[in-house]
Amino acid sequence: MTNSHPSAQYSITLRIENAHRPGMIAQIAGVIAGEGGSIAAIDLVHIHRGMSLRDYSIECPSLEHARHIIKALKLLDGVVVKSSSDNTFLLHLGGKLEILSKVPLKNRADLTMAYTPGVARVCEAIHQDPRVSFNLTIRKNCIAILSDGSAVLGLGNIGPEAALPVMEGKAILFKEFAGVDAFPLCVNSQDTEELIRFGEMVGSTFGGINLEDIAAPRCFEIESRLNDALDIPVFHDDQHGTAVVVLAGLINALKLTGKTAADVKLAISGAGAAGYACVRILRSFGIGSLVVCDSQGSIHAGRDFSHSPAKAWIAENTNQEGEQGSLQEVLKGADVFLGVSRPDLLRRSDLERMNPDPIIFALGNPNPEVMPEEAEGLASVIATGRSDYPNQINNVLAFPGIFRGALDARAHEINESMKAAAAHALAGMISEEELSADYIIPSVFNRSVSKQVARAVARAAHDSHVAHRMPKGIQL
Amino acid sequence: MTNSHPSAQYSITLRIENAHRPGMIAQIAGVIAGEGGSIAAIDLVHIHRGMSLRDYSIECPSLEHARHIIKALKLLDGVVVKSSSDNTFLLHLGGKLEILSKVPLKNRADLTMAYTPGVARVCEAIHQDPRVSFNLTIRKNCIAILSDGSAVLGLGNIGPEAALPVMEGKAILFKEFAGVDAFPLCVNSQDTEELIRFGEMVGSTFGGINLEDIAAPRCFEIESRLNDALDIPVFHDDQHGTAVVVLAGLINALKLTGKTAADVKLAISGAGAAGYACVRILRSFGIGSLVVCDSQGSIHAGRDFSHSPAKAWIAENTNQEGEQGSLQEVLKGADVFLGVSRPDLLRRSDLERMNPDPIIFALGNPNPEVMPEEAEGLASVIATGRSDYPNQINNVLAFPGIFRGALDARAHEINESMKAAAAHALAGMISEEELSADYIIPSVFNRSVSKQVARAVARAAHDSHVAHRMPKGIQL
Repeated sequence: MTNSHPSAQYSITLRIENAHRPGMIAQIAGVIAGEGGSIAAIDLVHIHRGMSLRDYSIECPSLEHARHIIKALKLLDGVVVKSSSDNTFLLHLGGKLEILSKVPLKNRADLTMAYTPGVARVCEAIHQDPRVSFNLTIRKNCIAILSDGSAVLGLGNIGPEAALPVMEGKAILFKEFAGVDAFPLCVNSQDTEELIRFGEMVGSTFGGINLEDIAAPRCFEIESRLNDALDIPVFHDDQHGTAVVVLAGLINALKLTGKTAADVKLAISGAGAAGYACVRILRSFGIGSLVVCDSQGSIHAGRDFSHSPAKAWIAENTNQEGEQGSLQEVLKGADVFLGVSRPDLLRRSDLERMNPDPIIFALGNPNPEVMPEEAEGLASVIATGRSDYPNQINNVLAFPGIFRGALDARAHEINESMKAAAAHALAGMISEEELSADYIIPSVFNRSVSKQVARAVARAAHDSHVAHRMPKGIQL
Repeated sequence: MTNSHPSAQYSITLRIENAHRPGMIAQIAGVIAGEGGSIAAIDLVHIHRGMSLRDYSIECPSLEHARHIIKALKLLDGVVVKSSSDNTFLLHLGGKLEILSKVPLKNRADLTMAYTPGVARVCEAIHQDPRVSFNLTIRKNCIAILSDGSAVLGLGNIGPEAALPVMEGKAILFKEFAGVDAFPLCVNSQDTEELIRFGEMVGSTFGGINLEDIAAPRCFEIESRLNDALDIPVFHDDQHGTAVVVLAGLINALKLTGKTAADVKLAISGAGAAGYACVRILRSFGIGSLVVCDSQGSIHAGRDFSHSPAKAWIAENTNQEGEQGSLQEVLKGADVFLGVSRPDLLRRSDLERMNPDPIIFALGNPNPEVMPEEAEGLASVIATGRSDYPNQINNVLAFPGIFRGALDARAHEINESMKAAAAHALAGMISEEELSADYIIPSVFNRSVSKQVARAVARAAHDSHVAHRMPKGIQL
């Protein structure tokens, strides 16, 4: 995942000492720039006995570049690199989460209410009616982020310990964007039955479970069985978060191009967790013709999917024409391409087989199926999963608000109508006047996104009768 | 658990409106006092059109008393009780914990370092060496509080949801007293094998596991098997927390009375989790004679304990004289009584059978085996588990500092020498000059307790070779 532009992911801080005389900073900055580094900040530590000590925060294109910068600086006369640190690692030191008390604990009375003996009264109330736990414990606002570390980002099966920084990151996104308390649980098993049992056992502690980075097809069964077993929402974000944001973007892309859902042909590359969920939500939305390709080509009723219920479902419910062939062949006559698969699958010539003014959603991780530059001037709308191009299809637009809405409504599940409501709310955030080929989906830093999504999701929960009123039990 | 004194556990707040004229507050306060309530605070909300509105915070002896206060106030002329709330329940609304981000997440660069793509670099480092997870994830400072809700406080087997407020309370104690992040996991199973498997699976996320309120004898096997399976400390606080504080108190009580460990006879009532752990730590400490009683009387080699390995161990390793009979009979000639069983088992006449100047540790929950008033003038030292008598033997003196020390040393277990070190550190906090019959153990609000305990525990971890140095991986 190296690239040629300086990035915050390779941000370093160098503590540099040099003779305190004019021109030194210019000289140092020149060396840094010459090696491809971009200075983000220079902070003075002190000036002492004719020497100055400064911290240089530098974004680099790669770790390799960072090392070259250090080496080059050491060759400068009168300059000493006193220490160097890798800011991404520094930021992760000790983990990214903290667990705090919401109640004071300064004296005996505090202890008596929050712990023994007062807490026993709350325990007894919950013992009499376990539903009260949704009001009087962390279940009101706290979800688990459950992963087995088997399909993490673009890294694959790296195991539970190595997956933990991602789940911690997800937890801070939940808190930052929607006020949802989320705790990461990375578990040391990749057995479907064990994972289901784990979820069943831990469900009593949480108000919801966000499944994360669990490999297909295991993720489908785990989600479905846990949703049946528990009275709290269980939501596999890699599937539904992606599907919701894809649908939101597509609603606006169709509006912009004047195409009608029922009339378009949509070709999908990828039949994993995200692909399957996209197919389901797009089919419910009313896309006229859907054809999905996996690495073997188009999925059609003639292939054997007895080992994969998800692909069997796709074969049964899409590709009514029975199209056979490669992704390139399926693209012929398509209006929309949706990639949830691998980098660099397509070229401009492949896109030229599509209908005029095609819509391209190339969401491959870490790089899209086709680079936006290749589709320029050909596609009417281009979206990717990356932050350095317009129209970033990013799950963070969906999952915080979806869980916020589900918790607010005390919904026992996140059903199809709640997901559709989230997509429509997201799409609706771009006004007719704002809508353009470069702006079909709001920014992840638009703070009203999760509020709008949450409101729509909670309303849909009520309308579809999965919301619960909770007994209060505080009045005497 | 009602008693006749007002307590914060029955703290209520009444919003009362009355005509704004002299004498009204006195009248209201008189009614409250007449019904046994104690006013903690009166806050003015507003005065408007000749009426004043105030919030009265009142501690009551019981909920019954609270209801009587409200009823009596409603009979007062010119007084309206606008609303009433139960402060213990109010404090629990939404749970007692919050999960916060330790890192900023305000712009694209923050997101790039804390989440994708930067986080992938940290994941890869941990994937290469999972030990790095103890530095770069929450494992550095975060433990699980794991319970099945089967033996909660004095409430018994109330299940996971009802146990959650206790575990949340425990979590805030960990944070408040030792800066340890702790997360409660109340699980919906009481099967030994399932609980062990759960612990094994979740161990990858935490730096330690505190087992809590799990019934004996299940708790023994779960702790032992998890300690074998995991490379993080697993510690059943009901056992060892109690044992550490008991030993600390006893060290000082012996010093005070001039008795020598090797020469005393110690009678224990209770062979559950706490009793078993006390026996083990007291035996290691060198108590001369130990006799344990369960509900059937003394535990001796002649009884059949094939169903209970813990009691079989006690039978084999204590009561060398083979004493048989009831607790009352065993007390004959004892120097120390330790109760970790049930309220109201003994009378003054029973204590009179003991050797002169006996030491009484009556820790029964919620009330002691014998009330201190019964032993007054007879015992040389009396300790209970209650906060309203001197010498409170409270686990909170031990568990925060013990885990703080274990985490600081990155110890893979909490062994016997670490527990003994904790007890000696605790006992050592009372100087020779301070030591008295009413002061053998520090207060739970003494903020240096956990620091002293942590330091001693970390040192013992290093000395007993269970501490680990961690690779840093931050320098470039």
